[in-house]
Amino acid sequence: MTDYKIIQTINGPEDVKKLSMEQLEELASEIREALFNRLTKIGGHFGPNFGMVEAEIAMHYVFSSPKDKFVFDVSHQSYPHKILTGRKNGYISDEHFSEDSGYTNPEESEHDFFNVGHTSTSVSLATGLVKARDIKGDKENIIAIIGDGSLSGGEALEGLNVAGSEINSNLIIIVNDNEQSIAEVHGGMYKNLAELRETGGTASNNLFKAFGLDYIYEENGNDIASLISLFRKVKDTDHPIVVHIHTQKGKGYEIAEKDKEGWHWCMPFDRETGKPTISFGDGEDYTSITAEYIMQKAKSDSEFLVITPAMPGSAGLNKEQRKELGLQYVDVGIAEEQAVAMASGAAKNGAKPLVVTNTTFIQRAYDQISHDVCINNSSVTILLNYNSFDSLTDVTHLGIFGLAAYTNVPNLVVLAPTSKDEYLAMLDWSVDQKEHPVMILIPGNQVTYREADKDFNRLNHFKVEEAGEKVAILALGDFYQRGEQLSAKIKAELGFTPTLINPRFASGIDKELLESLSERHQMVITMEDGILSGGFGEKIASFYGSSDMKVKNYGLDKKFYDRYDPNELLKEVGMTPVQIIADICNQIK
Amino acid sequence: MTDYKIIQTINGPEDVKKLSMEQLEELASEIREALFNRLTKIGGHFGPNFGMVEAEIAMHYVFSSPKDKFVFDVSHQSYPHKILTGRKNGYISDEHFSEDSGYTNPEESEHDFFNVGHTSTSVSLATGLVKARDIKGDKENIIAIIGDGSLSGGEALEGLNVAGSEINSNLIIIVNDNEQSIAEVHGGMYKNLAELRETGGTASNNLFKAFGLDYIYEENGNDIASLISLFRKVKDTDHPIVVHIHTQKGKGYEIAEKDKEGWHWCMPFDRETGKPTISFGDGEDYTSITAEYIMQKAKSDSEFLVITPAMPGSAGLNKEQRKELGLQYVDVGIAEEQAVAMASGAAKNGAKPLVVTNTTFIQRAYDQISHDVCINNSSVTILLNYNSFDSLTDVTHLGIFGLAAYTNVPNLVVLAPTSKDEYLAMLDWSVDQKEHPVMILIPGNQVTYREADKDFNRLNHFKVEEAGEKVAILALGDFYQRGEQLSAKIKAELGFTPTLINPRFASGIDKELLESLSERHQMVITMEDGILSGGFGEKIASFYGSSDMKVKNYGLDKKFYDRYDPNELLKEVGMTPVQIIADICNQIK
Repeated sequence: MTDYKIIQTINGPEDVKKLSMEQLEELASEIREALFNRLTKIGGHFGPNFGMVEAEIAMHYVFSSPKDKFVFDVSHQSYPHKILTGRKNGYISDEHFSEDSGYTNPEESEHDFFNVGHTSTSVSLATGLVKARDIKGDKENIIAIIGDGSLSGGEALEGLNVAGSEINSNLIIIVNDNEQSIAEVHGGMYKNLAELRETGGTASNNLFKAFGLDYIYEENGNDIASLISLFRKVKDTDHPIVVHIHTQKGKGYEIAEKDKEGWHWCMPFDRETGKPTISFGDGEDYTSITAEYIMQKAKSDSEFLVITPAMPGSAGLNKEQRKELGLQYVDVGIAEEQAVAMASGAAKNGAKPLVVTNTTFIQRAYDQISHDVCINNSSVTILLNYNSFDSLTDVTHLGIFGLAAYTNVPNLVVLAPTSKDEYLAMLDWSVDQKEHPVMILIPGNQVTYREADKDFNRLNHFKVEEAGEKVAILALGDFYQRGEQLSAKIKAELGFTPTLINPRFASGIDKELLESLSERHQMVITMEDGILSGGFGEKIASFYGSSDMKVKNYGLDKKFYDRYDPNELLKEVGMTPVQIIADICNQIK
Repeated sequence: MTDYKIIQTINGPEDVKKLSMEQLEELASEIREALFNRLTKIGGHFGPNFGMVEAEIAMHYVFSSPKDKFVFDVSHQSYPHKILTGRKNGYISDEHFSEDSGYTNPEESEHDFFNVGHTSTSVSLATGLVKARDIKGDKENIIAIIGDGSLSGGEALEGLNVAGSEINSNLIIIVNDNEQSIAEVHGGMYKNLAELRETGGTASNNLFKAFGLDYIYEENGNDIASLISLFRKVKDTDHPIVVHIHTQKGKGYEIAEKDKEGWHWCMPFDRETGKPTISFGDGEDYTSITAEYIMQKAKSDSEFLVITPAMPGSAGLNKEQRKELGLQYVDVGIAEEQAVAMASGAAKNGAKPLVVTNTTFIQRAYDQISHDVCINNSSVTILLNYNSFDSLTDVTHLGIFGLAAYTNVPNLVVLAPTSKDEYLAMLDWSVDQKEHPVMILIPGNQVTYREADKDFNRLNHFKVEEAGEKVAILALGDFYQRGEQLSAKIKAELGFTPTLINPRFASGIDKELLESLSERHQMVITMEDGILSGGFGEKIASFYGSSDMKVKNYGLDKKFYDRYDPNELLKEVGMTPVQIIADICNQIK
């Protein structure tokens, strides 16, 4: 049992400033113990935090938060900062774990300024703090922390460019260079960072200087004394300066130091062995199905090309598989705009590109999907993982906005598969056809097995899985199984067989079929895995607006939910079978 | 009358290759004459094309399009290329003007690969062409043309970064450096470009080299012989190389050379004087109203801050006004992500930021609106111009997707004003409040004058402008006047007074009011200036889905319309008063 002698005395940054150098070193090891305590038990971001312990101690030693303002990029590296700003209990005291989110969070502390979870945001957000400070005539230090692969995102580069000319006052940009992204880094700038590391910051063609920024380098990014001296040098600077520090991702845990990609993020694990202490059963999942499809397709079709913005894990691709794919695989680094535009170009020159990432991140390429791909009808397939209310529940990583964002983009065919067979059929069809941009929403539920029609050429053709009467259930994508359950309950409790429909296409409506439902049905129910606003069901409601058909849309509210219980949420929005049956009884006679 | 001796012989790039150096020079002046012919009569992009005449001649002289592939950025600088690739008639023959769009267009010619109109896309699109070429084992040259301010966009920077490491084959990036964006350039990189120009390309901290790219400089960007020799040097290169050429925006027309911003784009004009030959009447427009509001607000409120991504014209701000705004104005250059994120930061540090641009461009910051602003409930006001079917009709610049894109983002209050008074009241309210992110859609119709309620604190509170019976018309934003016309026609022809509602809020619904309509109404009509899919009306239809109220949504189809006649389009979607009255007669008894 660790006794956290120093941590126990830290209730805020002012307590950090009281410590001797020796005590600061001791604090660093206690912080790593505290991180182990939380991460072995509930998991979280490992490597980014272990690498930044010393830097965050030195930051709080030199600067005066919250007057001086730290803006963390992604903010998955902010755990030591949280421990130092009154939130130690979320790390050393198990019953308090749930009080701290995995990201910075202004509702938790005045030392946090933004809820963030997407990369490449900190410089741009910090320039805004700077601009407001300057028009108010204030004088505090504004410090952006960025790194861990996120420099390659367009927003960060736009931010550096603007900081390099439009800001003429204090702005400190700490570049946490751990030689790594989630997976390995990609992009010419990383050759530049390597040259800078090798030359102690003196290499020519310095990227930051090219953007008009002042620059300073520190090799010992895990040495508190060096960092304190460094930060003292730049404190109260009167112009923007980049502080490039070389840190070691995962420092302090040998297993993580050796496998940086594997330990970017961790499940609960055993500290001795590094092995996860929970498991998800042995059955296959959609990620492994995706990886298998990709490897087979690449072998059999030399035009097939996989592009990912730093998220090979979304497709279950491990290092060996990525290597095996060779020329048919491109990781563009954290750069969603580039990934989508590149895919459009590749399609126009005869390749069959598949872009893979998470739903929450692809919104960074909204314009590229609309303008670069869809206006041009480029036959790009965009494959999205974690597109469900039932996957990631952090407010910054929700997968519930995809239907609203993309089903309204012209020309884009959004497909929502309901089983393994249908998922693979959709992939096959989409990758091989040359007429349409397609988005496929990987189901968020357990893998289910049902045979599927394999032809999707007739766009927006919904499939009637069971013909019935009175009530028609349109259950979209991974909510199809909920539709099945509802159907069974209606049969059992209400004594009739409803019609069960698998829409397959989320981006259009089957007018002919909907028209024909009017004959034997009084009510249409839609069920979808996302917010209702702008999604699938509202299109159905609009279609029937001037008819006698009653329509009830089931889905989530337009809301940034945060760390919720998925089952409770379904109850909250009235979507359990019991609640829906009650609604039906109110409607049909 | 120009006789276009050389141009008449050019039916494709092969004819350019046959010319002597003297004839190429003559061709350049004939192209300028052809540009004058089109631009004096129908307007278009002036400066970008006049500056690139020599470069595009040299490109077609050295490379072999369409085997070698040119990808123009924005493609507003592609007119000389069009003249040289079989489309001269669109410039020299007035009756053929309409055959050529103002941008590259694959439907027009095999020499064009993409429909583009947004900036910063060419490098990323070109890397895709490269990747497909490489997996197919082909060998052609791929040439991206970028410049005119668009290097600062995130997509372009992501593209340069990826080109600098992930492409190991032929890719030529021509940087057209005319020292200018639409307005003046902003961003540290432009200091770097200036240093490179001043040193003949030898300055240290070369931005392109920092991204890992090879680099070559040419000072004489308007000299055909120098350019031919330059392009021959890089033709068939086996690696990515940046070819930095220094050109003069507007070259060949003294008035444009002197006023680069004013002549980026032009209305039809008189060549002698440079004065526009058409005018829009003397009345005020929403752009001048916006500029006036901004100047007054800035004077009276030191926390007010205007941020624009290179589109000061969207707010009607001229050079003198921008200067007068001083610290309270930031042009971040073409960098929508930065603009929106910066605004979020500024709001969090106590400023009152107003972001101004066009609807079609703000979609480049979709993630920043959602993640950086709305999750954080930053009190940012985003003000959008050209948000109407009746403004820009080029497929790449449509203003009809804003409602679908933004009314479904949680926390964002989307306001649709219906008159000058209401517009100003909404601006006042939004800028001063500290609770919500707000988007205001500047009306796309003529300025109208009606007094408005000034309180918007009760979100989603619709305003009943006239209470009536049987039919309720919800006419959103600049379609409110169409609602008034419809109401008048119903009174005259159907003999009853319908209820006329000004929703004001596009992003939510007034449940209480909608509920209350059930008493005296059988039908609700929604009218909106945009596509129906994902927009305002569908939310109303969903609300009434299980009631007896009939709902009919009027708006545009989910489609990339291109260069249409706005009045014809309204007929096509059944939205004229005559058509709506017929629908009503079918519904109500």
